[in-house]
Amino acid sequence: MNKLFAGAALVAATITVGVALAADHKVAYPTGFRAWDHVKSMVINKGHSLYDAVGGMHHVYGNPKAMQGYKAGNKFADGAVIVFDLFEAVDKDNAVSEGPRKAVIVMARDTKKFATTGGWGYEVFDPKTSKGMLDAKAAADCHGCHTQVKDSGFVFSKLRD
Amino acid sequence: MNKLFAGAALVAATITVGVALAADHKVAYPTGFRAWDHVKSMVINKGHSLYDAVGGMHHVYGNPKAMQGYKAGNKFADGAVIVFDLFEAVDKDNAVSEGPRKAVIVMARDTKKFATTGGWGYEVFDPKTSKGMLDAKAAADCHGCHTQVKDSGFVFSKLRD
Repeated sequence: MNKLFAGAALVAATITVGVALAADHKVAYPTGFRAWDHVKSMVINKGHSLYDAVGGMHHVYGNPKAMQGYKAGNKFADGAVIVFDLFEAVDKDNAVSEGPRKAVIVMARDTKKFATTGGWGYEVFDPKTSKGMLDAKAAADCHGCHTQVKDSGFVFSKLRD
Repeated sequence: MNKLFAGAALVAATITVGVALAADHKVAYPTGFRAWDHVKSMVINKGHSLYDAVGGMHHVYGNPKAMQGYKAGNKFADGAVIVFDLFEAVDKDNAVSEGPRKAVIVMARDTKKFATTGGWGYEVFDPKTSKGMLDAKAAADCHGCHTQVKDSGFVFSKLRD
């Protein structure tokens, strides 16, 4: 192997490892979440402090591990995934209905992978492409806000009957 | 057996049969529906024509047979059960949240049992006692309104992604 080829191979190997590490720290799209348990819903209107971030009607869903966590008093084990499914809220004729989906927002529990954000990975998926849109800073911002509810496992929602 | 006793026994038997028949035409409480698939949600406010009947925030859930029916284009087989879980809508600080549960409203598909109301049984359960509160006339009124959507299997809701 000549030096040039060896150098190129090293660069290629480095890129491959870099991509693999980055991919490993991504939250996966929550395929099938529409069949997960529904936790609760809410409408956030103009004037609310979270309107710019998550205005509209949202529904919270949990996978089986997340539901175990809710039932244990918001103590979530690795593998728990919570979806915040966000729609436009269409207020018309004295009723508020679901408009187009705005985003599929996810918290995924993995204490090793997401150690720097309290064990939770955060992602916002484009509803059309299902691709993640958050960079590391934005994910850290999510976690900054969720730190308000550290005592509830960093999760705002609680399970009701 | 003397005549009086025989007569009393006949009356008792008739009452028993009557109760059994009536019970058979009741819709069962949808135990476990909170783990069923969530179809959609809506908020109905004051001024809406259905406010007196079902004002508040509601979530629609379907059991597995109901979900098959939605996916088939609102063609529901016997055994399909749809729940309309109704809460007070608490509008405060530019957000609408779920208040106390107002009722658990149910449509249950049984083309024989509920032949007089298009094959659907209707019931409104008290959220505290889980007891049905509708009489036959009220159930017929439910069906009268649902007849508007006969072409959608008498079901207003449709499945979205």
